[in-house]
Amino acid sequence: MDKRERALQAHKDWQGKIEVITRASITNRDELAVAYTPGVAEPCLEIQKDESLAYEYTRKGNLVAVITNGTAVLGLGDIGPSAGMPVMEGKCALFKSFAGIDAFPICVDTKDPYELVDVIYKISKSFGGINLEDIAAPACFEVERRLKEMCDIPVFHDDQHGTAIVVSAAMLNAAKLVGKKNEELRVVLNGAGAAGVSIANLLLDLGFTNMVVCDVFGTIYEGGPANTDAQRELAKRTNKEKLAGTLADAMKGADVFVGVSRANLVTAEMVKSMSDKPIILAMANPTPEIMPEVALEAGAYIVGTGRSDFPNQINNVLVFPGIFKGALSVRATSITESMKIAAAKAIADTVTDEELNPEYIIPDIFNPKVTDIVAKAVADEAVRLGIARI
Amino acid sequence: MDKRERALQAHKDWQGKIEVITRASITNRDELAVAYTPGVAEPCLEIQKDESLAYEYTRKGNLVAVITNGTAVLGLGDIGPSAGMPVMEGKCALFKSFAGIDAFPICVDTKDPYELVDVIYKISKSFGGINLEDIAAPACFEVERRLKEMCDIPVFHDDQHGTAIVVSAAMLNAAKLVGKKNEELRVVLNGAGAAGVSIANLLLDLGFTNMVVCDVFGTIYEGGPANTDAQRELAKRTNKEKLAGTLADAMKGADVFVGVSRANLVTAEMVKSMSDKPIILAMANPTPEIMPEVALEAGAYIVGTGRSDFPNQINNVLVFPGIFKGALSVRATSITESMKIAAAKAIADTVTDEELNPEYIIPDIFNPKVTDIVAKAVADEAVRLGIARI
Repeated sequence: MDKRERALQAHKDWQGKIEVITRASITNRDELAVAYTPGVAEPCLEIQKDESLAYEYTRKGNLVAVITNGTAVLGLGDIGPSAGMPVMEGKCALFKSFAGIDAFPICVDTKDPYELVDVIYKISKSFGGINLEDIAAPACFEVERRLKEMCDIPVFHDDQHGTAIVVSAAMLNAAKLVGKKNEELRVVLNGAGAAGVSIANLLLDLGFTNMVVCDVFGTIYEGGPANTDAQRELAKRTNKEKLAGTLADAMKGADVFVGVSRANLVTAEMVKSMSDKPIILAMANPTPEIMPEVALEAGAYIVGTGRSDFPNQINNVLVFPGIFKGALSVRATSITESMKIAAAKAIADTVTDEELNPEYIIPDIFNPKVTDIVAKAVADEAVRLGIARI
Repeated sequence: MDKRERALQAHKDWQGKIEVITRASITNRDELAVAYTPGVAEPCLEIQKDESLAYEYTRKGNLVAVITNGTAVLGLGDIGPSAGMPVMEGKCALFKSFAGIDAFPICVDTKDPYELVDVIYKISKSFGGINLEDIAAPACFEVERRLKEMCDIPVFHDDQHGTAIVVSAAMLNAAKLVGKKNEELRVVLNGAGAAGVSIANLLLDLGFTNMVVCDVFGTIYEGGPANTDAQRELAKRTNKEKLAGTLADAMKGADVFVGVSRANLVTAEMVKSMSDKPIILAMANPTPEIMPEVALEAGAYIVGTGRSDFPNQINNVLVFPGIFKGALSVRATSITESMKIAAAKAIADTVTDEELNPEYIIPDIFNPKVTDIVAKAVADEAVRLGIARI
């Protein structure tokens, strides 16, 4: 059985990767009278008086909605809400496996960002948090921005921020390993969609201020052409020399290449044109911007990819379980930029100085400690910010 | 600890009556590659080609959404979406306990029926069926009607039809016990909200055509005042003598009283004014329209209530688990009137001729056979109608 057949057969056998079970035994009249009528009226009335008691009397406090409209599913693109469901169920399975969080997948049948916001907002009170997933850029920016304003629970677009946090963690350790300050590293970031924009913003906030962002047309610079508002904003904060050119131009003399773009865009020559000890984080899936063996042969010092079959797997499963676990644990009203920074630093610090080496800048995704370390850092930061409610 | 404290403590201990778990083990890279990237792309692509494969590769085929807007929760009224959640979770726990169905509670924050329809429709592809719950009349009629038109999965407002089916089952057996044909029984139905309208329609379809419906203002008759379109429709099909009067007027000489109204509306005198062997189904909760001991002393032959502490508990937990189990088992596109009739007859037939007596016209709600008997009847009828998809 090849890999394709195996994946299909496994999905058939599972008949869904999630399941809803009951935590209340209802096998006799007495139990029914407590869990349902008439007993259930009591928690209803309590919540009516004080909505925060929903965290005490319902599943809300451990429940995250994984929501998509199916417009940017994996590398598959706009495959629609029904076809996106296996990915959403998989994400929910990861939430449970890695953090014990109940996550429920909902695919919304609309491509209109305002309709999507409307639907999500109107069902949001049923949940303790909203994980937006696989929503195409640029709609995803507006969808998240509006929902964050409207909801009093965490709203987190994982494709943006989960990726940004795990890349930032890798960058913090890479900088440590090459012995340079963050601002001394010249970073070229290729890809200015959902993930790219969020990576750029978080790296800037972490002090990686010497950065040039490229999209498919080349470098982004102030006054240059830009596809989205997000790119125009980025142009103001990056590329201070206003370098106009190709990705290859930008990479000359750079210390770091970060790719969230497409397969095989980076050549050995481009790596050779970089500064000493080049750092390559090539995260296009399933085929990276440059294969690790090619990059290493061209002189790369550190190489990370999204793949599990090479060292330094940069995968946001290191992030979202802990982010939500931490936020839920203190009933945070949102997930802020400083909570993301706290998460990135916590992930980076999971790798000890003794462990840190070019093939180990980021913890293994199955390292059982990571979720709780991230959760604690995120929760502590929420408390410090005064947005915890417990 | 009194009953109130016990219910609150139990809900605190449960921290939610439902839980989302994973059916896919994800503990190593190999399992991750099947359940998530890259393997998950395969079922996505299959579903994109043929949407019906969502039943094969996702949880859709065993998954029901329990959806409310919190406008008519139990006897508590319009308590809002958050406060309604304990009831929705309880309903989901019943779905799992009685039918093995995964049910997920969603509370929608809108009172506008068109907005409610819009939200539910846009998330409906994630589910195999929609159980509408505790939505106030008359909005509930329009919400259900529109969703049934729009969705290709079963949409079922349990407060209407679950109640109608279980009452119909009780009526079929009561008629058998008193040895009269359905059309010979004069039925007075008190209450013309969500449940009342559906009960009237199903009883009419079952041949109980000699019926007078009352609302809070008295009998409903053609040409008389009516509050809703549904009541105007009912007026055409019932009360052929166009009797205008009070509930007490209507009950004189009647064989059956069916109440989905309020506590203590029916007096001993009203029962005494009825025909021989009066049948009283007094389902107001928690206090019925007349207490069983009062009705029996006044000459009632059969008394049923919604309560578990008297014989003949008429509770829709006998209905909705089997209705959805049957519909899901054949991937029915909807739940039709004839499927409801099949369910009512199946429930009635669960009581054998030997068992049938005035204190046992309806099976015990914990009778483990009922769900599967109902499911089979409903599935068979869907196949007969040609609306099964498996």
